Amino acid sequence: MRDHFEVRAQDAGGRIGDLTVPRAGVTVETPTLMPVVNPNIITVDPARFREFGAEILITNSYIIKNDADLRERALDEGLHGMLDFDGAIMTDSGSFQLAEYGEIDTDTEEILEFQHAIGSDIGTPVDIPTPPDVPRERAEEELEETQRRLELAETVETGEMLVNAPVQGSTYPDLREAAGRHAEHTSLDVFPVGAVVPLMNDYRYGEMADVVAAAKRGLGRDAPVHLFGAGHPMMFALAAALGCDLFDSAAYALYARDGRYLTVHGTEHLDSLQYFPCGCPVCTDHTPDDVQRMPDAAQEELLAEHNLHVSFTELRRVKQAIRQGSLLELVEARAHAHPRVLDGYRAFLDHAGQYEQSDPVSKDTFYYTSPESARRPEVVRHRERLDRFSLPETVLLAESGTDDDFDETWRVRPPLGPYPRELATSYPFTAEVPERMDDAGYEAAAKGVSRLVALNPDTEFTLAHRDWPARALDYVPPRVE
Amino acid sequence: MRDHFEVRAQDAGGRIGDLTVPRAGVTVETPTLMPVVNPNIITVDPARFREFGAEILITNSYIIKNDADLRERALDEGLHGMLDFDGAIMTDSGSFQLAEYGEIDTDTEEILEFQHAIGSDIGTPVDIPTPPDVPRERAEEELEETQRRLELAETVETGEMLVNAPVQGSTYPDLREAAGRHAEHTSLDVFPVGAVVPLMNDYRYGEMADVVAAAKRGLGRDAPVHLFGAGHPMMFALAAALGCDLFDSAAYALYARDGRYLTVHGTEHLDSLQYFPCGCPVCTDHTPDDVQRMPDAAQEELLAEHNLHVSFTELRRVKQAIRQGSLLELVEARAHAHPRVLDGYRAFLDHAGQYEQSDPVSKDTFYYTSPESARRPEVVRHRERLDRFSLPETVLLAESGTDDDFDETWRVRPPLGPYPRELATSYPFTAEVPERMDDAGYEAAAKGVSRLVALNPDTEFTLAHRDWPARALDYVPPRVE
Ligand SMILES: [Mg+2]
Ligand SMILES: [Mg+2]
Ligand SMILES: [Zn+2]
Ligand SMILES: [Zn+2]
Repeated sequence: MRDHFEVRAQDAGGRIGDLTVPRAGVTVETPTLMPVVNPNIITVDPARFREFGAEILITNSYIIKNDADLRERALDEGLHGMLDFDGAIMTDSGSFQLAEYGEIDTDTEEILEFQHAIGSDIGTPVDIPTPPDVPRERAEEELEETQRRLELAETVETGEMLVNAPVQGSTYPDLREAAGRHAEHTSLDVFPVGAVVPLMNDYRYGEMADVVAAAKRGLGRDAPVHLFGAGHPMMFALAAALGCDLFDSAAYALYARDGRYLTVHGTEHLDSLQYFPCGCPVCTDHTPDDVQRMPDAAQEELLAEHNLHVSFTELRRVKQAIRQGSLLELVEARAHAHPRVLDGYRAFLDHAGQYEQSDPVSKDTFYYTSPESARRPEVVRHRERLDRFSLPETVLLAESGTDDDFDETWRVRPPLGPYPRELATSYPFTAEVPERMDDAGYEAAAKGVSRLVALNPDTEFTLAHRDWPARALDYVPPRVE
Repeated sequence: MRDHFEVRAQDAGGRIGDLTVPRAGVTVETPTLMPVVNPNIITVDPARFREFGAEILITNSYIIKNDADLRERALDEGLHGMLDFDGAIMTDSGSFQLAEYGEIDTDTEEILEFQHAIGSDIGTPVDIPTPPDVPRERAEEELEETQRRLELAETVETGEMLVNAPVQGSTYPDLREAAGRHAEHTSLDVFPVGAVVPLMNDYRYGEMADVVAAAKRGLGRDAPVHLFGAGHPMMFALAAALGCDLFDSAAYALYARDGRYLTVHGTEHLDSLQYFPCGCPVCTDHTPDDVQRMPDAAQEELLAEHNLHVSFTELRRVKQAIRQGSLLELVEARAHAHPRVLDGYRAFLDHAGQYEQSDPVSKDTFYYTSPESARRPEVVRHRERLDRFSLPETVLLAESGTDDDFDETWRVRPPLGPYPRELATSYPFTAEVPERMDDAGYEAAAKGVSRLVALNPDTEFTLAHRDWPARALDYVPPRVE
């Protein structure tokens, strides 16, 4: 068990955690976003990050090390002094530069020692960020090299500094899972799922979800997971549901420089906005027209501030949803606003069995809001657990009422299917469902009937339903009346 | 044509309009929300409404008339002076009190004259708000009485004051449509769809959508429509898509009094919040814990401010979406967050043919984000218009590529189905669709194939598809290879 990370609440794969960062003397609440600070170009002063809700930032030790001036200042004042930030500071190692340019002039031992020397709170070895879609052999070889470097990192003397253990493996789920398991067994502390930026840049959220789910299968529950390079609020809810605890955003600043404005549904260009679709202090105090007329620097700063506000607001929404057990309801809202996030959610649901294990058995009301809801972990779990009941000779499955001609009357409702009436006031059977139910909901219920019937060959079943569609009734075995 | 209302942009049934209110000397941009001001209990000072974006408020002339003190002040200072508000002021007539208590001590003529006397900018006759689900006979009789009062209202001398023409008819779509047509032919000015509050209180958004769609069929395009009593931001996008221009909210204040906090996904109680799921100035500057510890009056005021911010923010989002042609994408996001809003959206889609007529033919990218997307007006329209093409002897329908063995190659993609390749760069054929398409999308495409084949009996079709599901292929006629 990792004593620097404590999970305090959970919903689906999402959790609220306390990440204790001893060297910074702070405890960071996750999920959170680490604004990326380019020490050469400060868009929003890190001293102001707390206004937005940032407790931790990330900067690049390799860039600092290779700039004589920055290097001297960092060694002299320390990172916290140089950046004027009293929260936690994570540093990257130059792996990104390695992926981008093919080589770098440092190694794991040297860069970890440098990170320690400049006062980083969480350092990073030089892993190999294998991109998506490479031949399997390359992915395997590079993963082995990454793993050697993690083992080397374990031996470097870095005091109280936490150390990242990146999880690689390209787009091969089994390699990601093995990489997660290996990283979990090192003495390292924080677990970035690496090299997913190319997937995210291409909005390949379905494959991103598969990669994260695989890494999570290898990592333990108490491993804090960083989705490296994920900084767009449109996918925070999905990524949190997959079990990611840390995000990092260069987007807030890079997009602002480019006149781009983040929303939880996508990205807009300032020039295309007649109204600000946001209620943050920036967007309440200004109109797009006001901001369009400003000098570039002022415009960039306001856009960056909005981008931070919208990102941290979404994280508060995610945390509140985890507390209430409504994280998947939030994911539904996000998924049904963008086809690629929908891909990601559909991929998540392919792993419903995996996430069922961490899903709390009781929470707020289950909202059925799409055919996807019929595949949620709660529905999967209830259908699995139908083997826990023992049934009498004759059972009526009815949407309402009871009938004394039968030994027992059970309730049957889309999407959960059959359940004993005494559970009707318990989660998830208090589900709110649309009046206009869809086929997927009826089919899920019919599959539940089918399983219950198969589990109880000696019971005679009668199903009293209100006009279920033929497609759903196809799943009900013929021996049910 | 009504020269006081001008539609400036449109998407689905939603529009951005300019409502000129001559007596106030202002033009109000719609869709907008009119905060309800109870002159006896001011929660947020109307002088501050502009901070939130409110250009028009609504108050109740019947309450004012029946309170000696308020009556005198209103007659003396005028409503604008009394409420300290320089925007437009709409007044209600006591119809609500009539519905609630069965009788009131005024009539259309008297109350309109009183409204005029106190300086109202938009007045209301005493209509009969027939509740949902009443016997048809009652709905008909009360509608006749409402219509007589509208005709009476036409004769009352009210100068520049605009006058509301409420549309009643209970839950009978044909009566609502007839009521809309009758109201449209009066000389009155603004069209509240009345007595839908009981539907909205019970979250019967499916039936609400049917009622509004029916009223809209009777009303003309240039009729400004007020969804009377609609003040929850969770349904603004849906209601705007149905063609509503004005909303009114007592909820912002009533809910605040009760510790309730509005979001675009529903209602939360302050006590259940650990995090504010909102980025407005109130929620950025405070934590729930801060506000929970405040004295009641301060708490109520902050909650009311948040409730106004979240409501006007959603309206800016709606307006921006109308400008971009992405209103239905916003409705999708809202519908898939709450089962009842989903009912409303599904009901809207039952009227896709009606709304197709006002939907612009070209807009931003079509996002396919749920099986509901397969029923959008654009999909319906394209399938309808397949009769505009003349086809050669042999046609290949292919998801990609071309084949010279055929006279012509058409594209075929879920959900739009077959279309000439030269349209591939035009709306809606530039659609973004998920990689993980659902059956509904394939089925919609297959229905398009079916219609094209039926329209062209002399053409030989070959369909080259990538693993469409059997359910979809059932729609493709057997003569297609
Ligand atoms: Mg250590
Ligand atoms: Mg007039
Ligand atoms: Zn903003
Ligand atoms: Zn707020």
